[in-house]
Amino acid sequence: MALLDRITEKILKQIDGAGFKQEGAYNLRHNGIALCHGDSEHIKIKKKEDKPGIDVYIDGRTKGEQVHIPVVVDASGMTDVVYNDFFVEEGAEVTIVAGCGIHNSGCNESRHDGIHTFHVGKGANVRYEEKHYGEGEGSGARVLNPVTKIILEEDAIFTLDTAQIKGVDSTQRETDVVLGKNARLYVMEKLMTHDNQTAESNMEVQLNGEGSSAQIVSRSVAKGNSRQVFHPKAVGNAGCHAHVQCDSIIMDHAEVSSIPEINARHLDAAIVHEAAIGRINDEQLVKLRTLGMSEEEAEGVIVEAFLN
Amino acid sequence: MALLDRITEKILKQIDGAGFKQEGAYNLRHNGIALCHGDSEHIKIKKKEDKPGIDVYIDGRTKGEQVHIPVVVDASGMTDVVYNDFFVEEGAEVTIVAGCGIHNSGCNESRHDGIHTFHVGKGANVRYEEKHYGEGEGSGARVLNPVTKIILEEDAIFTLDTAQIKGVDSTQRETDVVLGKNARLYVMEKLMTHDNQTAESNMEVQLNGEGSSAQIVSRSVAKGNSRQVFHPKAVGNAGCHAHVQCDSIIMDHAEVSSIPEINARHLDAAIVHEAAIGRINDEQLVKLRTLGMSEEEAEGVIVEAFLN
Repeated sequence: MALLDRITEKILKQIDGAGFKQEGAYNLRHNGIALCHGDSEHIKIKKKEDKPGIDVYIDGRTKGEQVHIPVVVDASGMTDVVYNDFFVEEGAEVTIVAGCGIHNSGCNESRHDGIHTFHVGKGANVRYEEKHYGEGEGSGARVLNPVTKIILEEDAIFTLDTAQIKGVDSTQRETDVVLGKNARLYVMEKLMTHDNQTAESNMEVQLNGEGSSAQIVSRSVAKGNSRQVFHPKAVGNAGCHAHVQCDSIIMDHAEVSSIPEINARHLDAAIVHEAAIGRINDEQLVKLRTLGMSEEEAEGVIVEAFLN
Repeated sequence: MALLDRITEKILKQIDGAGFKQEGAYNLRHNGIALCHGDSEHIKIKKKEDKPGIDVYIDGRTKGEQVHIPVVVDASGMTDVVYNDFFVEEGAEVTIVAGCGIHNSGCNESRHDGIHTFHVGKGANVRYEEKHYGEGEGSGARVLNPVTKIILEEDAIFTLDTAQIKGVDSTQRETDVVLGKNARLYVMEKLMTHDNQTAESNMEVQLNGEGSSAQIVSRSVAKGNSRQVFHPKAVGNAGCHAHVQCDSIIMDHAEVSSIPEINARHLDAAIVHEAAIGRINDEQLVKLRTLGMSEEEAEGVIVEAFLN
């Protein structure tokens, strides 16, 4: 079993809520190198030969198993680009826990670009959890640019649960999903920015299969002078349902821009979008302050409740 | 009093619901020329010297008066570009009835580009009605590209009621609104496209003044192989409220794309957007058919109710 240093342990606690253990199928990437890795009976992880990254093979008999593939970057000035491919066989049921934490105590930018592609077979059910986190007293920026591609075959179900907790100076998220017949997508995106951080999230969901559906919920809080831009796009090319909801709280001098796009190209495509941007709920704030909380504490409670 | 021909009379009935009369302040533009025009005590219409179009001066004592400025194009192959400016003084209350109808019985494109600018003084209240309509058995396209700029000073109120009834082959609408302190904007946009028509509507609303508000409702029906794109944008630069709602019904092989953008740049900017695209309500259809209507009749009733 690989020994992990204190910083790595601390970051893993932030990005892997279920708790990272060197058991079953796992792969810990540290400063661009696989620090430790394991397979299970049904899940095999293979290092790519042609470029950095791994291929994860999840066979059809996988039921309720977890794969943990966290990434830690603690070298200042490092750019880590990784390509991870997931091949999920027909009927598999799996939870993939990813996430990336950057500890930057230097003055140079540390960056991680994770390009993840999911090939999800007929009727398979995948839950993908991804947490992004930055820390470190250095002035160097912590940058995360994830690219996520998801291809869902007939009856496949995919749940994308993604959260940017804090400390990420700049992020550019790109998510593309293609849904086959009766496939279902659930997205829960949570994002918190503060200080001078910027975040942009682009998502394109192509509902190609008859009976496919997508439910996308995005919740964000922008504090300080931070800037957020959301551009979710749902395209209905068949009889399908999609519901996109973006809610944002702005605080201080922050700015949020929400540009959803819904595009119905089929008579039986039903697509709904809702977005709201506003300040923190004043009534809740007053109530919590009446209970003895400081303004800051009360705001913290409301923000946490909103994001969870 | 100018005598109007049969086609002009017929088109005026479509685009001027209140009924066009050569009374009070009015200006009828026909194939690029002012066919008749009149002033009232409080409203003066002056022909522009430097380019085609009119300046309409509405003084502060105007209360409840109407100005009618319809445009009729019935020459095939004509492109009519007109610049109309409206100067509405502090405290005026006025209804401006515009609208454009194209009768094209030839094989060349007939086009009208109306560039309208509204300078609305303190506390003035303007209702602007605009209907667009096309007809004629010719194969030449009927094209309408309106540009509408609205500048609202403190406490001004502007109601924009715009409808594209039918027969317009191609439209590109550009609407820009700037709101001062406590200014209020109400927009009701109705759009119906059929056959191979295309419609694009871009709207940018800048809420610059403290206490300003905007309520934008867009309803559209796309039939045949028609294509519609909506891009309303609301930017909150001060403590303000905005609500944008776009609802569309698609029929046959039509396509609708809705790309609203809400951008909050101030802590007290509260902006909400809702959009929905879907097919005609099946339950209503069944109910009306039970009452003895044909499918076509039932659809007609539902579409009309939705747009009104």
